[in-house]
Amino acid sequence: MNFRSDNEAPVNPKILQAIVDANNGCEESYGYDSYTLKLQEQMQQLFGCWCDVIPLTTGTAANSLAMALMTPPYGSLFCSENAHMMSDECGAPEFFSAGAKLIGVSGENGKIDIEVLEKTLAGTGVHGEHECLPSAISITQSTEAGTLYSLDEIKQIDEIKQKYGLYLHMDGSRIANAVATMDCSIADLTWKSGVDLLSFGATKNGAMIAEALIIFNPKIGKEIKRMRKRAGHLISKMRFVSAQLLAYLEDDLWLQLANHANQMAQDVYLQLQNTHEFIYPVQANEVFLRLRGDEIEQLQKQGFEFHVWPGSTDIIRLVFSHATKQTDVTKLIAALKI
Amino acid sequence: MNFRSDNEAPVNPKILQAIVDANNGCEESYGYDSYTLKLQEQMQQLFGCWCDVIPLTTGTAANSLAMALMTPPYGSLFCSENAHMMSDECGAPEFFSAGAKLIGVSGENGKIDIEVLEKTLAGTGVHGEHECLPSAISITQSTEAGTLYSLDEIKQIDEIKQKYGLYLHMDGSRIANAVATMDCSIADLTWKSGVDLLSFGATKNGAMIAEALIIFNPKIGKEIKRMRKRAGHLISKMRFVSAQLLAYLEDDLWLQLANHANQMAQDVYLQLQNTHEFIYPVQANEVFLRLRGDEIEQLQKQGFEFHVWPGSTDIIRLVFSHATKQTDVTKLIAALKI
Amino acid sequence: MNFRSDNEAPVNPKILQAIVDANNGCEESYGYDSYTLKLQEQMQQLFGCWCDVIPLTTGTAANSLAMALMTPPYGSLFCSENAHMMSDECGAPEFFSAGAKLIGVSGENGKIDIEVLEKTLAGTGVHGEHECLPSAISITQSTEAGTLYSLDEIKQIDEIKQKYGLYLHMDGSRIANAVATMDCSIADLTWKSGVDLLSFGATKNGAMIAEALIIFNPKIGKEIKRMRKRAGHLISKMRFVSAQLLAYLEDDLWLQLANHANQMAQDVYLQLQNTHEFIYPVQANEVFLRLRGDEIEQLQKQGFEFHVWPGSTDIIRLVFSHATKQTDVTKLIAALKI
Amino acid sequence: MNFRSDNEAPVNPKILQAIVDANNGCEESYGYDSYTLKLQEQMQQLFGCWCDVIPLTTGTAANSLAMALMTPPYGSLFCSENAHMMSDECGAPEFFSAGAKLIGVSGENGKIDIEVLEKTLAGTGVHGEHECLPSAISITQSTEAGTLYSLDEIKQIDEIKQKYGLYLHMDGSRIANAVATMDCSIADLTWKSGVDLLSFGATKNGAMIAEALIIFNPKIGKEIKRMRKRAGHLISKMRFVSAQLLAYLEDDLWLQLANHANQMAQDVYLQLQNTHEFIYPVQANEVFLRLRGDEIEQLQKQGFEFHVWPGSTDIIRLVFSHATKQTDVTKLIAALKI
Repeated sequence: MNFRSDNEAPVNPKILQAIVDANNGCEESYGYDSYTLKLQEQMQQLFGCWCDVIPLTTGTAANSLAMALMTPPYGSLFCSENAHMMSDECGAPEFFSAGAKLIGVSGENGKIDIEVLEKTLAGTGVHGEHECLPSAISITQSTEAGTLYSLDEIKQIDEIKQKYGLYLHMDGSRIANAVATMDCSIADLTWKSGVDLLSFGATKNGAMIAEALIIFNPKIGKEIKRMRKRAGHLISKMRFVSAQLLAYLEDDLWLQLANHANQMAQDVYLQLQNTHEFIYPVQANEVFLRLRGDEIEQLQKQGFEFHVWPGSTDIIRLVFSHATKQTDVTKLIAALKI
Repeated sequence: MNFRSDNEAPVNPKILQAIVDANNGCEESYGYDSYTLKLQEQMQQLFGCWCDVIPLTTGTAANSLAMALMTPPYGSLFCSENAHMMSDECGAPEFFSAGAKLIGVSGENGKIDIEVLEKTLAGTGVHGEHECLPSAISITQSTEAGTLYSLDEIKQIDEIKQKYGLYLHMDGSRIANAVATMDCSIADLTWKSGVDLLSFGATKNGAMIAEALIIFNPKIGKEIKRMRKRAGHLISKMRFVSAQLLAYLEDDLWLQLANHANQMAQDVYLQLQNTHEFIYPVQANEVFLRLRGDEIEQLQKQGFEFHVWPGSTDIIRLVFSHATKQTDVTKLIAALKI
Repeated sequence: MNFRSDNEAPVNPKILQAIVDANNGCEESYGYDSYTLKLQEQMQQLFGCWCDVIPLTTGTAANSLAMALMTPPYGSLFCSENAHMMSDECGAPEFFSAGAKLIGVSGENGKIDIEVLEKTLAGTGVHGEHECLPSAISITQSTEAGTLYSLDEIKQIDEIKQKYGLYLHMDGSRIANAVATMDCSIADLTWKSGVDLLSFGATKNGAMIAEALIIFNPKIGKEIKRMRKRAGHLISKMRFVSAQLLAYLEDDLWLQLANHANQMAQDVYLQLQNTHEFIYPVQANEVFLRLRGDEIEQLQKQGFEFHVWPGSTDIIRLVFSHATKQTDVTKLIAALKI
Repeated sequence: MNFRSDNEAPVNPKILQAIVDANNGCEESYGYDSYTLKLQEQMQQLFGCWCDVIPLTTGTAANSLAMALMTPPYGSLFCSENAHMMSDECGAPEFFSAGAKLIGVSGENGKIDIEVLEKTLAGTGVHGEHECLPSAISITQSTEAGTLYSLDEIKQIDEIKQKYGLYLHMDGSRIANAVATMDCSIADLTWKSGVDLLSFGATKNGAMIAEALIIFNPKIGKEIKRMRKRAGHLISKMRFVSAQLLAYLEDDLWLQLANHANQMAQDVYLQLQNTHEFIYPVQANEVFLRLRGDEIEQLQKQGFEFHVWPGSTDIIRLVFSHATKQTDVTKLIAALKI
């Protein structure tokens, strides 16, 4: 019973079928195929605006290309201290941006504290050319802690962005889980709230190997195709990536899948909220729970797989995916209740 | 009738089936799945030696990681003037190696002229620290011109490599086509002839999205996993890449597919050798043919798709793939014969 | 009356004379001149060990080349949150190392807290290839706060370095001020305490344009000359840099000059310690003092030049140099006493 | 008798005196001193236009910062196969530009062949994103072969630059020698002929450690100060660099010095033109001469120092500097005449 990561889940059958169906004779390579062209249209329809859609195979590539688009080598990007870009990408954003700086901003619940962000930015500039040029902000939605920035919070960050002349990136590795919870559209959450670039994740939520970088701001990204190629991320048979994303969008499959994952997490929360300590609000598909060492051991013995959170001995992370079975969750709750 | 590129061909059904079959429950992510582990074994068996197998999604990533492993930022790599690394990767090798230099070596038939290589290397060093450190040689097998380095030629290059203390990389984007033609094993062609690193291609020859970097030299590559991650090339659901490669190797599928493609090219050559000018020897799955402008136009009108070679107006490239139909080739020959 | 920075001070007359004297006919260029060769010997004598001496023109170049020697692109370096490398070099260490990561370690008095360092390092590794490889530690001596690491503290850091297989760098932009205060030799402070690389500063303490990177560890730095050239830091008429450093070392001029600067700082401290709040212990040539806004204004009106510390409104930094006049300091003390 | 390199020559006494005179009390550091401000004005007066003047300490830094300003990481720069940037800077332009590509253009007399350049550029673009973006041209004036681009040639290159939307850089490591020969102003040679960026050399022609990057095109270079800092090239006591350049410009000292060097080269040419083979036209301060092995040996025995040109055994390079003595040249001519 795997609660370790949504990356370990299988592919949704509809998405797999789309791959099979795309294997139909020859198609132009390197992104000039009919699937990729159609994806461009479908995404623009989803977002209700012009956008440039760059299919990719990893979220790290999407985030790092975004970094390179927003931040010159002598620039800096502000993100949560716990952001994936900061601690889990082995310096990929620095690599892609030719050495730009990520500056961690502290905050509660895996989010940037907006006052701290404002204060940090207000303090820049006094060192002149001795200091990197503040260039961008990146937020993760839903966050690495399974929490959400409210629409209002994103708009506050957008104000800061505008005040300091920065770009705003959203790491949407789990954007579907955010939209599934929130009472707003993905357009509201992104470009309508000032987001210039979105890493649109699909792999964690049912795709096989498929992500996309969505460029809303036409001022950046003119040479994104050369940057993608140069990073070795131009897939020759791109139709098989785009086909996944098309199936993912069709009939709101992405939201259905995310909704299921979120629901599983909510079940755990609702059943255990009075008896257990939840480290963060449960707003998407991740649950962080404090347990005793013997409780953790007991769960593991019973075949439940999950991560004891790095740096702790008594916090476990449970991730629920599109493929998590209700029966497994019921067993998990039962095991935890004892 | 597509003779444009083997990148435009579909996926071989056995490989597609392997992807479908791999969609079986949860598997560890990031390359710690059972498919990737098994691939390691299968490749070691194929090569008859220890090697480290790094599944990737593009040949550019394989070549560029190889460059970064072999060549320090202040180093240089010697390759054919026509090498893919030189002209078709938008500077990816420079990017991955943090700015190392590719030095083009001239030669016939898309290959490095071994005497020119030796002479070029003999001339280095006089400028001391003002000059990049010669660090590596890269050869493409089969070449971008559809030709082959003989075993003897590779061994001569290996001698030069040893004399100057360099590494040797083989861009095997179409290595299967080379092995299918040559009377030797892939082991003979690679590590037994001094190759330290091989970009093992599969996508062009029937896979969907699957390549591998094979590291034979245990002295390099200790941190290849961090380098892969940092380049955004660590695929979370890697089983789906490795499953392709496993199917590709099984029962020598890779050689069967390459053999078919090569045979199609040979058919064209054998039928037209007395009447047409072939720019290069036809040794793998590519044919470069000189035609008159009106002949080219005529072919295009009849629905034959191919590239008129950049920089020329009278040279066409025909690429044959694992999926090229004999009937289409027969039609092509007939059309050319008129 | 300039207490703003030792970078604004003039050149010591003996050093200037050495430059004039070096202008004597032709000399080999690019560091193969007699001055640079002699400097190698003099430095080895000073340190009592083999070392490689790389004359440079800025401390940022010395620090950043050190970073590139110690830290691979996928590596990380641990330094104080307040280190010059972290906040005042516009990302130069990241640039030279092709995007490696600097990780700030908190601590008192501008120093790394050794327990925090140990704990931070102990927490690395759990993320495997998703995380940068811990590669180096850098400490500044004297620190950006005008304080000192004791010999014992450096040795504790060395133990951590050894435990985690890292390199240790000392940013000695003001190393002379440290040695002048401490009861030990520069050898004790550096290679005898585990320092692999030293940025040996001279410009702030009386030279015109002269720094040096000192490499104690023969395992790193084999290709430092190519790295220097490639960064545009190979001075053609290098004799004029080396001549400065030779004069700086002669008859312990460097220690005399630093001693004067330190003495000026001590005078201020001794005269005002009972009446004023000193932010950090005064151990070298910098004093950080808390004053009221009107006091600051008053001082400025009287012609005292200094920095109000960025991020504060009530902390001033006073820097004393080899050229600070005793009479100016007496006036400063008098003005502060009122 | 040194004819090896103008880099080995001493400093002109007036420039040395200017350094001594600049050692006058405190001055703001990091380029905000009065000398650097005045230099800005003097250069604008010299060029008769707005320009941004960035004092530096090496020509490699000037060229490489220029490369980084003109050429994005995915871009390419076209220069002579023999350009210093191409072969003598250990990959510095690649480093500063984060891996952009230098493409060598062949030609006679150390210059770009303009037709080859045009043809090369016309052939770009067909590979789309697989190819680097043509971004800049760089020419050296006077060239590494001691020859000159005529005003007309520069204007032809400018036309190509405009046609393809590129930037034009001039490596003026020996620009003074060019201006001293040509019947036009430095303004005519540079911005009036389409040059966007000039590496203005002074060290080879009498300065100690002083070069400047001159930015004529206001569209590029907005963040040049951060780029300089980040490369470790922001000299804290910059007044001592700027003072050299001010003295160099005063009363046309730069032209007088270059004129002397050129005259020495012309003397050799005029005396030996009928008896010796000159490899290139003698237009500045360098002479390339073909000699027999025994002649070379004989010269060396008589105390003449020069380089036998790398790659040859019978070509010597003689460089004449501002400090070359007429008597030494007379002896050289006599020795060659025998």
